[in-house]
Amino acid sequence: MSPGDSLKRLRAAKPLIHQITNYVVMNETANATLALGALPVMAHAREEVEEMVGLAGALVINIGTLSPHWVDAMLAAGRAANERGVPVVLDPVGVGATVYRTETAKRILDEVDVTVLRGNAGEVASLLGVAAEVRGVESIGAGGDPADLALEAGRALGLVASVTGPTDHVSDGVRLIAVSNGDAMLASITGTGCMSSAIAGCFLAVNRERPLEAAAEALVAFGVAGEDAACEAKGPGSFHVGLYDALAALDPETLDGRARTT
Amino acid sequence: MSPGDSLKRLRAAKPLIHQITNYVVMNETANATLALGALPVMAHAREEVEEMVGLAGALVINIGTLSPHWVDAMLAAGRAANERGVPVVLDPVGVGATVYRTETAKRILDEVDVTVLRGNAGEVASLLGVAAEVRGVESIGAGGDPADLALEAGRALGLVASVTGPTDHVSDGVRLIAVSNGDAMLASITGTGCMSSAIAGCFLAVNRERPLEAAAEALVAFGVAGEDAACEAKGPGSFHVGLYDALAALDPETLDGRARTT
Amino acid sequence: MSPGDSLKRLRAAKPLIHQITNYVVMNETANATLALGALPVMAHAREEVEEMVGLAGALVINIGTLSPHWVDAMLAAGRAANERGVPVVLDPVGVGATVYRTETAKRILDEVDVTVLRGNAGEVASLLGVAAEVRGVESIGAGGDPADLALEAGRALGLVASVTGPTDHVSDGVRLIAVSNGDAMLASITGTGCMSSAIAGCFLAVNRERPLEAAAEALVAFGVAGEDAACEAKGPGSFHVGLYDALAALDPETLDGRARTT
Repeated sequence: MSPGDSLKRLRAAKPLIHQITNYVVMNETANATLALGALPVMAHAREEVEEMVGLAGALVINIGTLSPHWVDAMLAAGRAANERGVPVVLDPVGVGATVYRTETAKRILDEVDVTVLRGNAGEVASLLGVAAEVRGVESIGAGGDPADLALEAGRALGLVASVTGPTDHVSDGVRLIAVSNGDAMLASITGTGCMSSAIAGCFLAVNRERPLEAAAEALVAFGVAGEDAACEAKGPGSFHVGLYDALAALDPETLDGRARTT
Repeated sequence: MSPGDSLKRLRAAKPLIHQITNYVVMNETANATLALGALPVMAHAREEVEEMVGLAGALVINIGTLSPHWVDAMLAAGRAANERGVPVVLDPVGVGATVYRTETAKRILDEVDVTVLRGNAGEVASLLGVAAEVRGVESIGAGGDPADLALEAGRALGLVASVTGPTDHVSDGVRLIAVSNGDAMLASITGTGCMSSAIAGCFLAVNRERPLEAAAEALVAFGVAGEDAACEAKGPGSFHVGLYDALAALDPETLDGRARTT
Repeated sequence: MSPGDSLKRLRAAKPLIHQITNYVVMNETANATLALGALPVMAHAREEVEEMVGLAGALVINIGTLSPHWVDAMLAAGRAANERGVPVVLDPVGVGATVYRTETAKRILDEVDVTVLRGNAGEVASLLGVAAEVRGVESIGAGGDPADLALEAGRALGLVASVTGPTDHVSDGVRLIAVSNGDAMLASITGTGCMSSAIAGCFLAVNRERPLEAAAEALVAFGVAGEDAACEAKGPGSFHVGLYDALAALDPETLDGRARTT
């Protein structure tokens, strides 16, 4: 298996990716999921999340815009996913900025068996209690080496930690994969972190038995699409548009050759 | 009257289209409404929906992301629209995927006099109790002929059924119009079904006395815009952008000649 | 200080702009904020708004899609901003269309010390009790001269009134600045009013002591970006994309020379 193989499987299987995500990026993560080749569904009502997650190949929980009813639904959906063996991605957007976000993310980690935690260094450091500066939803800086942070998060939390930044570091607490694909323009628009979490869900849906590799492959695929989109972009608006074109145009045959992983 | 005549009237009248729709596509349906030439307004609070619908030329209810407060508002707005003679479009997004969606759509159909039901074959079949496969919000397949489905839905539900797909079928239970405009790229982005429901609302607002024709004309206009956008698109991102350009550029003088209806 | 100087300061300081805004435009105002050079954060839970606003350089309250929980959060965030000296922008979207919107905007003005009120002529006139026609969220017409309206709103409400339209008028009740930058295409997409309120927040964050000038400079910057985007646009979709490119490309060195203010 490789990023290209996984992408081929994903486009053949078209898994449903259930996303309980924030208001800011719902359209963006839905379109990124579709462009890659999977099917998104957004459903957040307590009345239907358990049933919906039963249809899904993965559940993506993103706490970017929280409120109590949504937290209840995230927990219920997460528990239902666990019961049914559906892998769960958690994107702890803005953890460290407010107590409410930090406590909600910790509560989800306590009550739900999260498969992949996808966040920036500041968010992941905040979850571990390591000093970090988070400004709103942007990670300004986290003390120490991000590779160590991924390793420590994987070990301490018992999951795959996917810490994204200029170089991404993915770890299950033992093994560590660094991914250097991507482009600085990915930071010029909102929601690219959220999209990468959605894409982690897509790759997990067809790779339940190898979540570390799936999380890294997702970052390779998204990073390569970012590189392609940056070539044509005149600014953040055209980059944003080109990113969907590039995700849809990703070629499984050439993707492995473009992976920059160590 | 024809698609071109209706578009001319719509651009002259600029009707307000009140939309209670899902979080994923609100920006998209608002911009599609504006690009076509009408005015969108999104308002979902129980405290204001009845007053807002009184200002509107049509009400569009879309159940793509539900929760109990929103369902209450949809019902209140729908009843107020009925009292004031404002036509109502219902888009039963994801019906068949969960009990909550199916029951909500049925409750709206029971309590509100819906003018046009706009959905894909799986959704409409689910409402009729016909076997269908709905994966999240995507219709994977519905047993039988979609033309028969439209006819049966129109008859059984006492409304205009607008069943969209590779070919669209619109019926009031007696008459049947097939629309073959459109492009496969419309399925490459999220929200095009929702946009077509919003556009049905736009055409209904200037054609209250002929809802069957209005629903079909909306699909002609949206389909022609999709064809134009597909010509220039490099992928789903640029198609999405081009779709708004194409809606705004629709020419009432040439639209009728491009209609592919039978 | 000038628009160019303020833009330079803003890009150096990267202030966090806390936005409690409507569902339709969240992605758009976040991306406009980022493209300009500041950092957006959307947070609306009663549980976290007070803490979040303490991290922010400005708070932007936008009532485009209201419900009671959101109104509570807007009031709490506004009061917390006042206590901490964080400037507050209010965008009274659709005031005049429904009693609920009008009363909510008035309540915010009563309970929160608003620094800049940014609205169209119909909305601002409605807040003053002047006859105006608001169709949904569009201002169709307001009696009288918009410059007088800005002056009167600034005086009566004790804030900086930023009344946007073909020509924008900004007043603190004594002084009056007219801004003629912009392009008619800004009215072709939804959310440009909301973006201009977000950008007012960005300029206020680095100009707390001169809110009148900050509000006018924001309109110059946004208007110039609109002019640049219109040059390349084929319609509303490509204009929308180009607007983010143009905001990011704004050149502080040439911005002052392009300001059309009197």
